[in-house]
Amino acid sequence: MTLAIIGTGITKFGELWDKNWEDLVLESSNEAIKNANIETKDINSCYIGNMNLSRFEGQDHIAPRITEILGINKVIRTEAACASSSVALKLAANEIEASLDENKIILVIGFEKMTDRLTGPTTSILASASHFDTEVINGATFPGLYALLAARYLYETEATEEDLHAVGIKNHKNAMLNEKAMFRKELSLQDFKGNIASPLKLLDCSPISDGSASLVVTTEKYAKELGADYVKLEDIEVGTTSISLAKRKELLVLDSAKRAVDSVYKKLNLGPKDIDLIEVHDCFTINEILCLEAAGFAKIGEGYKIIRSLMPYEDINKKDAPVPYLVNGKELFVNTSGGLKAKGHPVGATGVSQIIEVVNQLLGRCGKRNVNPKIGATLNIGGTGGTATFSVLKGGI
Amino acid sequence: MTLAIIGTGITKFGELWDKNWEDLVLESSNEAIKNANIETKDINSCYIGNMNLSRFEGQDHIAPRITEILGINKVIRTEAACASSSVALKLAANEIEASLDENKIILVIGFEKMTDRLTGPTTSILASASHFDTEVINGATFPGLYALLAARYLYETEATEEDLHAVGIKNHKNAMLNEKAMFRKELSLQDFKGNIASPLKLLDCSPISDGSASLVVTTEKYAKELGADYVKLEDIEVGTTSISLAKRKELLVLDSAKRAVDSVYKKLNLGPKDIDLIEVHDCFTINEILCLEAAGFAKIGEGYKIIRSLMPYEDINKKDAPVPYLVNGKELFVNTSGGLKAKGHPVGATGVSQIIEVVNQLLGRCGKRNVNPKIGATLNIGGTGGTATFSVLKGGI
Repeated sequence: MTLAIIGTGITKFGELWDKNWEDLVLESSNEAIKNANIETKDINSCYIGNMNLSRFEGQDHIAPRITEILGINKVIRTEAACASSSVALKLAANEIEASLDENKIILVIGFEKMTDRLTGPTTSILASASHFDTEVINGATFPGLYALLAARYLYETEATEEDLHAVGIKNHKNAMLNEKAMFRKELSLQDFKGNIASPLKLLDCSPISDGSASLVVTTEKYAKELGADYVKLEDIEVGTTSISLAKRKELLVLDSAKRAVDSVYKKLNLGPKDIDLIEVHDCFTINEILCLEAAGFAKIGEGYKIIRSLMPYEDINKKDAPVPYLVNGKELFVNTSGGLKAKGHPVGATGVSQIIEVVNQLLGRCGKRNVNPKIGATLNIGGTGGTATFSVLKGGI
Repeated sequence: MTLAIIGTGITKFGELWDKNWEDLVLESSNEAIKNANIETKDINSCYIGNMNLSRFEGQDHIAPRITEILGINKVIRTEAACASSSVALKLAANEIEASLDENKIILVIGFEKMTDRLTGPTTSILASASHFDTEVINGATFPGLYALLAARYLYETEATEEDLHAVGIKNHKNAMLNEKAMFRKELSLQDFKGNIASPLKLLDCSPISDGSASLVVTTEKYAKELGADYVKLEDIEVGTTSISLAKRKELLVLDSAKRAVDSVYKKLNLGPKDIDLIEVHDCFTINEILCLEAAGFAKIGEGYKIIRSLMPYEDINKKDAPVPYLVNGKELFVNTSGGLKAKGHPVGATGVSQIIEVVNQLLGRCGKRNVNPKIGATLNIGGTGGTATFSVLKGGI
């Protein structure tokens, strides 16, 4: 049974003080439903990914709140920190395949409202996605944990801080072409100053954001019957590993991601050379490099060489279109949306938002930033890599 | 593809001050794995239901913590308040059916550690499963919300407070025969005094508890190959409705449950008359009545008449075995485990613990409380009914 994505909807990402989380969920969901050319009553069930409405807003048990605002009578929530909504998509895919019902339509939503914070600073709430008893309790936060990874990467390889910053420059450039992005401002190397957690500068970090993203999923067969524009969800898989960095076998290997990636490549009988575009989890610039390695575009410890294909970094902003990396002589577009770094990172929304960028690229709906890919992928990470979801999508025509 | 449960494990429920949540998860999971006569490495993936480790203990992103302690490299968490782990079982069933892999083995875990409470009183943390902006913010807690339902039920029907208490007396009686139960003490009508929230007395309420429960699920075909004792999971379905009581069409109808129940009955072509035993969600005594109505054993507003089949209530404690209700002349055993009321209610664990009681009853493993059912069911409720999961199980032999 081949699955198809027939609708996408996404709010602007940013500090959205004038909207509450229900406004955001409604906005992205209604856009996806309209975009799919269906009605809410055609939807059989809904999966929602959200990290922590409980501590941001006091609300657990989100599923029946979604029922209340959307009228869908079967809603299931999943949580996997920043990978929550890609996991929700995996669960939706399972439901369709398990049902053997080719006419099933499922809405998948991811959202986070991070500027409201009932139970303390946002950084503390987010830190709960690392190991509480050993990392949080000793004062670790995500900038600190990723700084450990970045410091070790710079120590073990010949990568430099400028290679990290280049990721940010590229992703900000791409966000200039994405009207839903939070930061639409070009950066230069000189802008990266002021350590947040050495070696990470403020601009190596993705922002705290509000936002919601929604997808409509069904089967390819039904997508054709409906006459919908669609993209094929070829495969999606989830992997998990030890939550705490101290217990990883290799500190710099996202082995949850590698496991999910290897499973998908094997099932589809393809590899990194077949992929034209990927949205990866650049919560901190170092993680774009680690993701590229985990997805097989470079050997472990050599991902920074991919970044260097953009050199001289001063030239990244010269073109009014996304700049590709060169991987073994082939162009690879990464984070054309602007990535978490510049599009914004409302954690529960990120997984679905990555899928949306790939869908819209495959359907040629991205305007100036369209890069005409044939095969796209997403790699969504939870925490410091405790959870990872990898997906591959192809145009449906 | 028929699914089979081949292993069960459950901790004692109670105020378990000497154990942390990881101890509990390990204990129930190792027991289930041993009971299934498999090894952890045979398990392909794991679904975990937990309501709020985030606010009880500061830990989100539970899935990779489970990977860290159990070594399973694909773990997915779901949350649906007190229905979290039955939803986890539904997701596991979907994964097996979607995979078309008859040798797939999945571990399903539900747990809650409610006596630790990092972010405030347990009642406040639990209240987050009702509508935050209209119910919680105005001071509602679950005893209060269920008291509203109980008060209305007593007003609209001829039921009395004694009918509510009889549910508690029966379930405490059953817990006397369950060594894993929290409260093993007989009650009499005279014990029900002191309003918690009128008309509910303290003993009409289930307790705050710690506990964990685990299941091993695979296909019937593989269960037979393994030579395992097993029970067939005939069907399981989830329904949701408006989270807030004020937005329900009918205050006293658990319509999320009715929807799940109707779907399962229709698919299996059976009805309440075929069920010998059911574990229902008696978080408050009134809810055993509402659940019996939603599951079709009585018309709406007439469930209290089922309770009255136990009259005179003074006799409930006379027999050293569970006492059945009489429903249209047929015996129906309800909450032979002691129910949430007396077995305890570690919210994330409850859904799986209900399934375990039915599995063990069908396999004749319940000693003095065994009632030799042929078909068993569970009805697990989240919040005041925002989420509901209904399952039907049959002996495998």
